[in-house]
Amino acid sequence: MTWSEVTDHLKMDELREVWAILSPEDRVDGFRLLSREDADDFFMSLSSYGQSDIILGVPPGERRLWMRQLAPDDAADVLLEVEPEERAELLSLLDEPTRREVTALLAYAEDDAGGLMNPRFARVRPAMTVDEAISYLRRQARDQIETIYYIYVLDGDQYLRGVVSFRQLFRVPGDKRVDEVMETDVVSLPEDMDQEAVARLMAQHDLGAMPVVDADGHMKGIVTVDDIVDVVQEEATEDIQKIGGMEALEAPYLQTDFLTMIKKRGGWLAALFIGEMLTATAMGQYEDEVARAVVLALFVPLIISSGGNSGSQASTLVIRAMALGEVRIIDWWHVAGRELLAGLALGGLLASIGFVRVLVWQGVFHSYGAHYMRIALTVSISLVGVVTWGTLSGSLLPFLLRKLRFDPASASAPFVATLVDVMGLVIYFSVARLLLTGTLL
Amino acid sequence: MTWSEVTDHLKMDELREVWAILSPEDRVDGFRLLSREDADDFFMSLSSYGQSDIILGVPPGERRLWMRQLAPDDAADVLLEVEPEERAELLSLLDEPTRREVTALLAYAEDDAGGLMNPRFARVRPAMTVDEAISYLRRQARDQIETIYYIYVLDGDQYLRGVVSFRQLFRVPGDKRVDEVMETDVVSLPEDMDQEAVARLMAQHDLGAMPVVDADGHMKGIVTVDDIVDVVQEEATEDIQKIGGMEALEAPYLQTDFLTMIKKRGGWLAALFIGEMLTATAMGQYEDEVARAVVLALFVPLIISSGGNSGSQASTLVIRAMALGEVRIIDWWHVAGRELLAGLALGGLLASIGFVRVLVWQGVFHSYGAHYMRIALTVSISLVGVVTWGTLSGSLLPFLLRKLRFDPASASAPFVATLVDVMGLVIYFSVARLLLTGTLL
Repeated sequence: MTWSEVTDHLKMDELREVWAILSPEDRVDGFRLLSREDADDFFMSLSSYGQSDIILGVPPGERRLWMRQLAPDDAADVLLEVEPEERAELLSLLDEPTRREVTALLAYAEDDAGGLMNPRFARVRPAMTVDEAISYLRRQARDQIETIYYIYVLDGDQYLRGVVSFRQLFRVPGDKRVDEVMETDVVSLPEDMDQEAVARLMAQHDLGAMPVVDADGHMKGIVTVDDIVDVVQEEATEDIQKIGGMEALEAPYLQTDFLTMIKKRGGWLAALFIGEMLTATAMGQYEDEVARAVVLALFVPLIISSGGNSGSQASTLVIRAMALGEVRIIDWWHVAGRELLAGLALGGLLASIGFVRVLVWQGVFHSYGAHYMRIALTVSISLVGVVTWGTLSGSLLPFLLRKLRFDPASASAPFVATLVDVMGLVIYFSVARLLLTGTLL
Repeated sequence: MTWSEVTDHLKMDELREVWAILSPEDRVDGFRLLSREDADDFFMSLSSYGQSDIILGVPPGERRLWMRQLAPDDAADVLLEVEPEERAELLSLLDEPTRREVTALLAYAEDDAGGLMNPRFARVRPAMTVDEAISYLRRQARDQIETIYYIYVLDGDQYLRGVVSFRQLFRVPGDKRVDEVMETDVVSLPEDMDQEAVARLMAQHDLGAMPVVDADGHMKGIVTVDDIVDVVQEEATEDIQKIGGMEALEAPYLQTDFLTMIKKRGGWLAALFIGEMLTATAMGQYEDEVARAVVLALFVPLIISSGGNSGSQASTLVIRAMALGEVRIIDWWHVAGRELLAGLALGGLLASIGFVRVLVWQGVFHSYGAHYMRIALTVSISLVGVVTWGTLSGSLLPFLLRKLRFDPASASAPFVATLVDVMGLVIYFSVARLLLTGTLL
């Protein structure tokens, strides 16, 4: 490496370091300081979100250069990031064949197999010899196809007949015919398959690329495993944000503008707040009990939060197991049985800690008066009920949501807690009425 | 496809369908019904967890066959799943060179670059011509190397000099020397790099494979992008389970035995419960206020849960942004400013809903007596305080945890809620004292 190459690299690494907190203008300025080669590398390593920032930020004369760096699937992703009025302008910068490919890709939903695929792939005919296929591939290797290592065997109607790896071609005698060495049992992806299902299927079959076919079996493109890394990250981020009790952000945190973020968070927060108002109504039903035995109020936060915490554990477990395909909707009965037991065990655990807590505080501070033993029992028995209820409803809510065709990840910790809080109050005060009427009540 | 091939496929698909809920014995029984070819495919598509079940489940005479199907890195993963006493036995089933490779891999931490890598990769010498390299690769293609498409150029001391893609070799004249066409500016992974960092680096450089080198620059193996898909899934699952307020499970939900699961959930649940006991203590400080104005108790769940929900949103956002490398520890000041504003805005939103709620209930049910306006103000002002506090502490806790070298994902929704609940009570009752002393108090 020469000295100027070293300093160039420093520039690129530094830019990468601070990228997240730069304004769009500063990003473009930093980007334009890079050497041509580094700028290429850096540009290709950006997300489509970052690429669109660069393309819109550079002077109009340079836009064509950057648009033409992109493979058709990546160009389509960039166009989906920009405003509709800019889309047509950027599209016109592409050469004619690419423009046609990109336009076709834009018709797919962004998170379908069709939206992920690259329409340029290595192809051969079934009747070619291996030697003919290799020299035909040699020509294709010069084009911008995504990989020459998975080679699809198409007949004259673009109908997918088989697949062969380059490595396989490379190993067999050159005078064999392609259809003698190809694998005919090809796992292919329908155009409209959801990207989460695509990711699962690719992980299952451990392939580097999979073909996308239309309803008639014509091959349309390939999805490669490096696209899947992005999909898996994206889907996990969406789920995590939903589990955190908000709408998914769609863009990186520091790059989401303040108002959008407030909307995505405020909507759920207000909905949960309105749901949680039921707790005030529920508590209102027990106002007399609280007035007569103020000590009951002291344990309200402790009891309802235990229900919420156990529900949050159960719902996140089930949501994630569903997303990974480990648990399906028909398993709900199995999960319910398991979680009922788990709820009783965990409730029993907290009940015994709570019981000891009341006795110790009574011993040391004499906090709870003559009927402390009844109070300790009320708290403990309620905890078993509340934790079991929290665990059970937290684990079953994702099934219910999926059955109703909502995203199970919407069974967020805050959503479950809100459901469990109201029921928790009812359980607690019912137990109190049962055990304390005649003494404290 | 012949008819028997069709029915075989059905068997494999059915087995995959029910796999998650089968007992280990039933799994092995189902597996042994598959045709040899399907069993191979099915076995290779399993996780190392599933593969270890099969290997231990089949009769000892068949174990060797399945162990020898595995590439060294996968064999090492399987050995890490089994009990130490079985490890030696399974290791002895491998052939001598593989056993040596696997033993070397076992010395790496499971989630280091070294633990992920495959020690078998395509290699050539710098002084070879392209034609020599291609025919040398032709021989390597017959061995069980992971990919022949990324070719590493090593000198006699196994020192990594460069890399060249097969596609590149394939495109240039055959009499060029390898060191004339190779890329010398290779991004390599240190052996002990954490798998999360490896995943980020691979996504950044968009490569199908990356070399792992030791401290002296000797090449040890390659990590391929399909390993990264698993890493990304695994890391997201761990984070999601931590965000749900529990220890990560390490195995699929339905395959985790009941006692292990209770331990992983019970530990955190008990810790949170003990923390949450502070709410009873805090409420105890305000027992007189509650006795004098029972109406105050009615809003306790509503107010503290709003703090918890807003904290949960903020902490999950920051945890995920950190995991994706979008936010680093030095950005904390930037995040704090943003979240302070978000907290005030969201608190204001809930405060106005809460204000209207009290006025409407007063109008319809006359629930809150003569001082309803003061009650409405107490609730609203507390909400601004509690939501701002929840948002701010939820967003900063992950920074604090990372600074203390804990996993930021431990700043789970329940953990934040527990922290926020106590402070929420203090805020609420302090506002009440300020506004209601002389009237209700």
